[in-house]
Amino acid sequence: MKYSYVSHLFCPKCDCTYGVQDRHQLCQCGSPLLVAYDMEELKRDFHADVLKERSPDLWRYHELLPVIDEKNVVSLGEGMTPMLKMSTLGTDMGLQNLYMKDEGLIPSGSFKSRGAAVGVSKAKELGVERIAMPTNGNAGAAWSLYCARAGLQSTIVMPLDAPEITRKECLAAGAELYLVDGLIGDAGKIVGQAVADYGFFDASTLKEPYRIEGKKTMGLEIAEQFHWEVPDVILYPTGGGVGLIGIFKALRELQTLGWIDSEKMPRLVAVQAEGCAPIVKAWEEGGTSAEPWENPSTIAFGINVAKALGDFLILDAIKQSNGCAISVSDELIMQELKTAAVCEGAFICPEGAAAFAAARTLRKNGWIGPDERVVVLNTGAGIKYPDTIEVNVPILSREDQIHRPN
Amino acid sequence: MKYSYVSHLFCPKCDCTYGVQDRHQLCQCGSPLLVAYDMEELKRDFHADVLKERSPDLWRYHELLPVIDEKNVVSLGEGMTPMLKMSTLGTDMGLQNLYMKDEGLIPSGSFKSRGAAVGVSKAKELGVERIAMPTNGNAGAAWSLYCARAGLQSTIVMPLDAPEITRKECLAAGAELYLVDGLIGDAGKIVGQAVADYGFFDASTLKEPYRIEGKKTMGLEIAEQFHWEVPDVILYPTGGGVGLIGIFKALRELQTLGWIDSEKMPRLVAVQAEGCAPIVKAWEEGGTSAEPWENPSTIAFGINVAKALGDFLILDAIKQSNGCAISVSDELIMQELKTAAVCEGAFICPEGAAAFAAARTLRKNGWIGPDERVVVLNTGAGIKYPDTIEVNVPILSREDQIHRPN
Repeated sequence: MKYSYVSHLFCPKCDCTYGVQDRHQLCQCGSPLLVAYDMEELKRDFHADVLKERSPDLWRYHELLPVIDEKNVVSLGEGMTPMLKMSTLGTDMGLQNLYMKDEGLIPSGSFKSRGAAVGVSKAKELGVERIAMPTNGNAGAAWSLYCARAGLQSTIVMPLDAPEITRKECLAAGAELYLVDGLIGDAGKIVGQAVADYGFFDASTLKEPYRIEGKKTMGLEIAEQFHWEVPDVILYPTGGGVGLIGIFKALRELQTLGWIDSEKMPRLVAVQAEGCAPIVKAWEEGGTSAEPWENPSTIAFGINVAKALGDFLILDAIKQSNGCAISVSDELIMQELKTAAVCEGAFICPEGAAAFAAARTLRKNGWIGPDERVVVLNTGAGIKYPDTIEVNVPILSREDQIHRPN
Repeated sequence: MKYSYVSHLFCPKCDCTYGVQDRHQLCQCGSPLLVAYDMEELKRDFHADVLKERSPDLWRYHELLPVIDEKNVVSLGEGMTPMLKMSTLGTDMGLQNLYMKDEGLIPSGSFKSRGAAVGVSKAKELGVERIAMPTNGNAGAAWSLYCARAGLQSTIVMPLDAPEITRKECLAAGAELYLVDGLIGDAGKIVGQAVADYGFFDASTLKEPYRIEGKKTMGLEIAEQFHWEVPDVILYPTGGGVGLIGIFKALRELQTLGWIDSEKMPRLVAVQAEGCAPIVKAWEEGGTSAEPWENPSTIAFGINVAKALGDFLILDAIKQSNGCAISVSDELIMQELKTAAVCEGAFICPEGAAAFAAARTLRKNGWIGPDERVVVLNTGAGIKYPDTIEVNVPILSREDQIHRPN
């Protein structure tokens, strides 16, 4: 029995293949590379009942992950985040079976830690010494922290407007951090130049093949948490879209293994903000790739991505799953964030709130039926976004009393 | 098979007993009340192997929790937080087997959610409509959020200096929040008056018997995560001390059940800050209760508690376990917080850092041996304490390049 059944890398565009012993970034054709596993061997060796004996973290699926030697695993306990029934919020939006997968309960308080755990572990296995990446904040924080645990160096470039706490996480971890007066695309150009000049390993979204394998575990967990009977709809706040691509890949792999019904794929919904909706525009126009969005802007900063390298993979996953792409306004996002906290005690991030707002919209227009099982990914903890809540409360002296509440 | 094997409440001071069907606060003698279970029935009905089939949250131990009807469980997915080996940090302090139980990976990013989950669930079961409590921040945030999920009202009073994010969590959850220009003791007086005037349910530390049952699950998890072979030392940052009392209670219960060795109790260490160390002072003087600390002050705000209602229980648990009480300076706390992040990618809270600093001190003076298995409780996520990290980084324009790192 092997720890990993990883087989090779392949290009989803030109079908080139590459080995997993060497470092690779993009395919020679410019496309992201994906990881393939030896599915025949896996079908023989890997059965769902072994999971009962394993820890509740994403490494429980190590056979379907790319790290070959267990000693290279760099973990902070990430994965198996809760799947919570949202009865009150669901009733409020006319959904009887609304669930939240809460990715706030993960190291660094953001689902980015999944990609970082697997990406950094594999980078360590490949002998990488320093990674570099542009980020809207949370990915940089997560990769910095996992690099610290692995003993790797990191260079992070993020927009000035990225959530302030993420700077502090990078610095606490000892990363070399730069802020740029611009957007993530500008940060990406600066990182690209440094990668060319200094030979850093480029950990930009989809420019190395392993982050997606970490994100994929969200799909594996959703299936396991529903006892291998997948839900009807999964809504995912989409910037670079790695999680959506990863969830789709995970579910296809589980179908191949025969762990879930090969006839039923949840409808995947890519949720964007109205101020930055390149995938939605491409989807509505029937395109297979997206144009860069001009002057992107949204309060849901994590999905403020004008151009996703994996656009064609996102659009393909939506299409193959009979899903859709939809955008919501910042106003609805903020409203949904508040509703979730008051109704359910769930202090979620703006990106997660966008996905809940999309569920509400799609229920309203009938795309989601009232009885369908719907999973919303809350991709991070609300405590990373203190500015979403205004404070205006009474300050008492020690001698004061409080009034009878209404 | 019952969902809970709760039997009755008892007073650890005067041996009075009370039923679990009615609301109780303190014993008539003024002592906190503790929860008893029917251990004979449990020995017969409850076996560790059933846990394999259960979700990785604290309700996996429902037989040993006080909620009688499962429908009253209010959960946000709390519990079964990671137990991480800290090899690099351990080596740095001369400990070969240093572990961190990371309570940052829990709803609201603080271990207070354990007490809130069980406390609010039981309050709901008892028909409570509004709880009131003083807090140093995190407990108020957690109870507010769980109350929102349960449909209960909450009134929270916290010092002006409490972590700012905790105000926002309370408000997001719809709590009635007051800030007081004083300390938690002052907040406690204001709450006490409101409880007397308006009949709120008093959820102050140890003034209701069920919060401790939630905290107790840390002890159950530690035992399970070490496969029922308990570690040698457990270090716990101690303010009100509920977690320490709870861990001790849990381990005694597991001994009674025969799940762990009845001869081996981990040595429990109560860690305080030099600026607020009433338990340490009482311990050093051989006392069985503690005097209120004058002018308490520490950067580890969560343990800035001048007088703990459960002081006698804390001191008893330390004594019975052959543990100790120790204080560390704010300077060492901040140093340890930085070391943990750089060495392990663990962005911890100041209270957790205090416990690591204590481990370092106790290793240095020989109280902990180099091979002993040592567990440090990190009681919250570092992201709730942004002020612990200073930011001073270069800001680039879009056209800038970054330099070759040293």
